[in-house]
Amino acid sequence: MAELTVETSDKPIGVFDSGLGGLTCVMELMQLMPNENIVYFGDTARIPYGTRSKETITEYANQDIGFIKKHDVKMIIAACGTVSSVVGGVKDPAGEVPFTGVVIPAVQTACAAARNGRIGVIGTAATIRSGAYGRAIRAIRSDAVVLGNSCPLFVPMVESGITDKNDPVVKSMVERYLSPIRNENVDVLILGCTHYPLLRDAIADFMGEDVTLISSGAAAAKYAMNLLAGKNLLSSRKEKGSITYYTSDSAELFAQNAQSFIGRSFTGEVRKVTIDELCS
Amino acid sequence: MAELTVETSDKPIGVFDSGLGGLTCVMELMQLMPNENIVYFGDTARIPYGTRSKETITEYANQDIGFIKKHDVKMIIAACGTVSSVVGGVKDPAGEVPFTGVVIPAVQTACAAARNGRIGVIGTAATIRSGAYGRAIRAIRSDAVVLGNSCPLFVPMVESGITDKNDPVVKSMVERYLSPIRNENVDVLILGCTHYPLLRDAIADFMGEDVTLISSGAAAAKYAMNLLAGKNLLSSRKEKGSITYYTSDSAELFAQNAQSFIGRSFTGEVRKVTIDELCS
Repeated sequence: MAELTVETSDKPIGVFDSGLGGLTCVMELMQLMPNENIVYFGDTARIPYGTRSKETITEYANQDIGFIKKHDVKMIIAACGTVSSVVGGVKDPAGEVPFTGVVIPAVQTACAAARNGRIGVIGTAATIRSGAYGRAIRAIRSDAVVLGNSCPLFVPMVESGITDKNDPVVKSMVERYLSPIRNENVDVLILGCTHYPLLRDAIADFMGEDVTLISSGAAAAKYAMNLLAGKNLLSSRKEKGSITYYTSDSAELFAQNAQSFIGRSFTGEVRKVTIDELCS
Repeated sequence: MAELTVETSDKPIGVFDSGLGGLTCVMELMQLMPNENIVYFGDTARIPYGTRSKETITEYANQDIGFIKKHDVKMIIAACGTVSSVVGGVKDPAGEVPFTGVVIPAVQTACAAARNGRIGVIGTAATIRSGAYGRAIRAIRSDAVVLGNSCPLFVPMVESGITDKNDPVVKSMVERYLSPIRNENVDVLILGCTHYPLLRDAIADFMGEDVTLISSGAAAAKYAMNLLAGKNLLSSRKEKGSITYYTSDSAELFAQNAQSFIGRSFTGEVRKVTIDELCS
């Protein structure tokens, strides 16, 4: 009788984003699967993606995926709402490597939480223009009413450290972008961009405690765990996993700015990737 | 006796920027020299430059200059405050092609206008970090007091159309960024980024009528005219010149967004340049 074996994989999980927003997904991955190794790439030399055209976003996403694949990863997470919306509909965008964006995970979580079937979505201009969240929601729940709005200033606000819920600029922009959604009595709101959890307090205050906020990066981390478990690809490592960070702009700037995304001082090692390496 | 001849050149003037801000310089060029041809490049696939590192800005600037040089131009204007500050100190950044950024032109104009020798400068994070404006001002006027402040949210606000002087977000951000400068009693303020003229009304209201605002893009256009005249390179063309626009992101998005920068509907022809073409 053959011995019962459980397959495992000690290969790293690959995560990428246009910048640092994807770190909100990495934090959740570390929480859920502390023994996994992670390779992270933030395309800080070309952030933001969300204001650009579909063609440019697709080109950048393919380069990002190509770069992550060089690290022999067992799965790839596009921890970027814009890439997930624009490229996520492509079948197997990473070829034979298992792939997820944040749209399907966030939508599954949102549909499970929605009582009245009215779901709000906020994201970048490209995300909202793509209609990806609405399609994914209606595929699960055809009677759902989806209220979407783009919030183009949220990413630069977060990148500039303008996130305090008592800041009049934060209050004003949250009110401007979210009023059309709050007025429609949604009971779930998807934060469809991985930068937005840094504005969670302000958004929660404005939407009220009856509205459940879904962090798309955190949802993607849970989805990735289930996917890896289902494929017998979780790590057998007993010690704590390591994270290697890559960035297309200055490693120093990455380390400086990472702190606000992970909520504590950043001590990781960051390596610079040139744009030529990405283009080649 | 030799016949007196005046040399001329019908080659175009090359102008580039990280995005559309440089159009504030192009408008002034068209006003001053309506018969000149212009080639404009806006690197909209990689805007903004001002939040990036010196190394990345230098790499992008060199690619932009390389692209513009392919069009057999008679001079190049870096109509981008960030590029001008970071690369402008390099001797002959475009090789044998005459070159100007916006720093020297804006500083010459500011020093001529300053009565009390107290000069304010606002720009992107990279511009202010570079110290380029302060060095250029003190080279002309060693007793000048230079008050600089970076305004990282101004470019995304302009790109998002948030520019109305009565908008509470505009008022709040203008107050936040400019209070430290207004409190120092400057009588001249350099708008050290070619996006900022779109916020001129709000800035003028806050600074008061005694403060002269200098548009760096407009100053660069005047400087270019003098430079071309001095080198006998003005065009002999009698008819109106033409402008060819290139952009690294979608031509359609460029045309849509250009209107707010030129203050009227945009009718030009825009051609898309791929990032591969820029990198090669």
